[in-house]
Amino acid sequence: MNQVGHLRIDEQRFREDFACLCRDGATPEDGLNRPALSDAHLTARQTFRDMILERGFDLRQDGAGNLSALHCPSSDLQPTLLLGSHLDSVPHGGRYDGTLGVASAFEVAQVLREVSPDTPVEVIDFTDEEGTWVSLLGSRAMSGQLTPKDLERPRGNLDAFHRALQRSGLTIDGILSSTRHSKEFLGYLEVHIEQGTRLECHQTDIGIVTGMVGIHMYLVTFHGEANHAGTTPMNERHDAALGASEFCLKVHQTVKSDFPDCMATVGQMDFSPGAFNIIAGKVTAFMEIRSEDSEQAKDLENALREQAEIVARTYWLNLDFDHLESVIPQKMDARIARSIESSCHRLELSYQTLPSLAGHDAQSMALLCPSGLIFIPSSGGFSHSSREYTPWEACINGANVLLHSAIQFMDSVIMKNRHATELNRSS
Amino acid sequence: MNQVGHLRIDEQRFREDFACLCRDGATPEDGLNRPALSDAHLTARQTFRDMILERGFDLRQDGAGNLSALHCPSSDLQPTLLLGSHLDSVPHGGRYDGTLGVASAFEVAQVLREVSPDTPVEVIDFTDEEGTWVSLLGSRAMSGQLTPKDLERPRGNLDAFHRALQRSGLTIDGILSSTRHSKEFLGYLEVHIEQGTRLECHQTDIGIVTGMVGIHMYLVTFHGEANHAGTTPMNERHDAALGASEFCLKVHQTVKSDFPDCMATVGQMDFSPGAFNIIAGKVTAFMEIRSEDSEQAKDLENALREQAEIVARTYWLNLDFDHLESVIPQKMDARIARSIESSCHRLELSYQTLPSLAGHDAQSMALLCPSGLIFIPSSGGFSHSSREYTPWEACINGANVLLHSAIQFMDSVIMKNRHATELNRSS
Repeated sequence: MNQVGHLRIDEQRFREDFACLCRDGATPEDGLNRPALSDAHLTARQTFRDMILERGFDLRQDGAGNLSALHCPSSDLQPTLLLGSHLDSVPHGGRYDGTLGVASAFEVAQVLREVSPDTPVEVIDFTDEEGTWVSLLGSRAMSGQLTPKDLERPRGNLDAFHRALQRSGLTIDGILSSTRHSKEFLGYLEVHIEQGTRLECHQTDIGIVTGMVGIHMYLVTFHGEANHAGTTPMNERHDAALGASEFCLKVHQTVKSDFPDCMATVGQMDFSPGAFNIIAGKVTAFMEIRSEDSEQAKDLENALREQAEIVARTYWLNLDFDHLESVIPQKMDARIARSIESSCHRLELSYQTLPSLAGHDAQSMALLCPSGLIFIPSSGGFSHSSREYTPWEACINGANVLLHSAIQFMDSVIMKNRHATELNRSS
Repeated sequence: MNQVGHLRIDEQRFREDFACLCRDGATPEDGLNRPALSDAHLTARQTFRDMILERGFDLRQDGAGNLSALHCPSSDLQPTLLLGSHLDSVPHGGRYDGTLGVASAFEVAQVLREVSPDTPVEVIDFTDEEGTWVSLLGSRAMSGQLTPKDLERPRGNLDAFHRALQRSGLTIDGILSSTRHSKEFLGYLEVHIEQGTRLECHQTDIGIVTGMVGIHMYLVTFHGEANHAGTTPMNERHDAALGASEFCLKVHQTVKSDFPDCMATVGQMDFSPGAFNIIAGKVTAFMEIRSEDSEQAKDLENALREQAEIVARTYWLNLDFDHLESVIPQKMDARIARSIESSCHRLELSYQTLPSLAGHDAQSMALLCPSGLIFIPSSGGFSHSSREYTPWEACINGANVLLHSAIQFMDSVIMKNRHATELNRSS
């Protein structure tokens, strides 16, 4: 144990592997541009494939494209410890979101293989965590939460999605049949940057995530009348741009004034036809709402729907307020949280518990097996941006906490089983 | 003269030719989708080419792609009467904007060739009147107003513009060298739908255009900080979407309250990176201002620039307020206006004089030769939309007024020349 207590990851190898996994799709601003199933993303997966085989792990890819490195010591079906994250990024995102988690998991798996060769370990890179097409596609497919309907309404458009699947050698049937069984897994652990400023503000080394917020996505479309921008009197216009613009402001104001515990964002607007000299006939706002509390999220949705209706009436527009997709809130496993906590004590790192305001694959896995999420600080809270940054020491802390949390968790499972056996014997 | 007074266009031929020119790029909603140099636009030009040759006119295409039907009775260089409009449309536009003007000019040229075979006539289809790439490209090139700089900043992007030129067999040098000399032309006449409701409201058959408004185009870009939509606190955001949205509303309000004689429109916004889960780091608003009075247009530009600066400060954003392009206001020729007026008397049609709130090739041609523009009513004022409509009787009126205005104008020129000759003789 004392020996185990001094166990650390191989910093040099970790740094080199992370750099290698950040190579494909790198941007001039030191970010990553690897939307799921893009050429850059597929190249990054090939790079990871090569690393897996080169390090003597078995390779596995399921029907959803989830890519795994396997250490299977024996043929008998012991439950596997699953570690991972994702290699895809948002358009022009950062280096740390997902990729650091995969590099950490891969490093920890190599250490575990040495110190505990009998334990089956799987390192997984989930497909489309960021939802370029369908958010958490890979982990939701694996945990059996993905329905055919989810795959019929991808973001972007359906044809582009099908072309991307084909380019990646994937199929709808393959995705839907890639569900795995909870018996296969001991538990799931992930390390990820916080993507906020809470840890940095409190100067805390490690965040122990209690659960994830729910994420609800909407397409809010204002229908006006495309008309000549020079000859249509200002007071006779049905200008969809005015409705969408006022709605965008209302979304921000409503959350700030009445829903302090929620987030809401309009991150994109599509104008049609979209020209200097044509009044916008149709504008679609891409909106998302986030909250830990499903009730509050619903109340906010209703408040914003009402605002949108008022705005539409004000500007003589018609309204479509479509709920596109939701990711339900999810609690993390308490026993894994305790393992993370004691590993922080062991490594003498400060920690705090906190909810995750972003979605993560761990929330899908939580429906399949005990799951836990470890946060490390994000400098300035920059995220989904090339300005994303975490000091290297913090990255090392995250990987070491992942290593010791995994060990502590496996120990606690062994203890529990031994206890169960004794109970059986004594009865 | 009495015989000439009873002269009319061939309604049957006119109707068939118009239908034929509306075929390519027709939309299910009975509109036209023929952005300049698109496949549909190039096909429409091929259709017109076939019509020109089939009717025994000579064919001419200049370096800017302007396509002409020529009736050149003799080799000696008499000035030519130029009639025309454009076959290109805005994205998903209507059937009447431009195409009706080309069909009317082509019909009138066929009648003139019969009744006055000695008069050289040219029917022209100008390139990119709508400014898919560079507004009034063809007519500005022909009248020598186009600079290399204008062609270096096309709408859309430069690569796409160059690809479109190549696909159309055009070159930058060709465009810049397609200038023609004022001596070549007697004058230019065009018939066009009003694209507004003034004629319809006054139940007037014909509008005699006194001049065109100036059009000024701007790219107004708000620079914020792309960041995670779930983890960035609402009150710590630098959200470019909020700045662009408030600016879009301010544009509308400022014109309505302080600039009743101007128009201003935000017809398009580009979001970057543009996703549900990323706060917009950069939003560009495509804005245009229209006014008959250059002073007022400048005052409005300054007022909106000030508004944009205030908005940027309010939301912690940076601002680029770029003037992209301007089309200067232009008066039409008084003698041609009188010819249109007397042709309305001759045809017993009601008329009114009015400025054009839209840009037209006639304003470029006015710098080259005496030019005139004839308006016919637009039902409901719908324009740059598939709902664009003008009753067929009004289209026939327009073509007949074009015919008689041309004759009256040519007569007035002959009278003037004879008068000049007599003056010389008597001196």
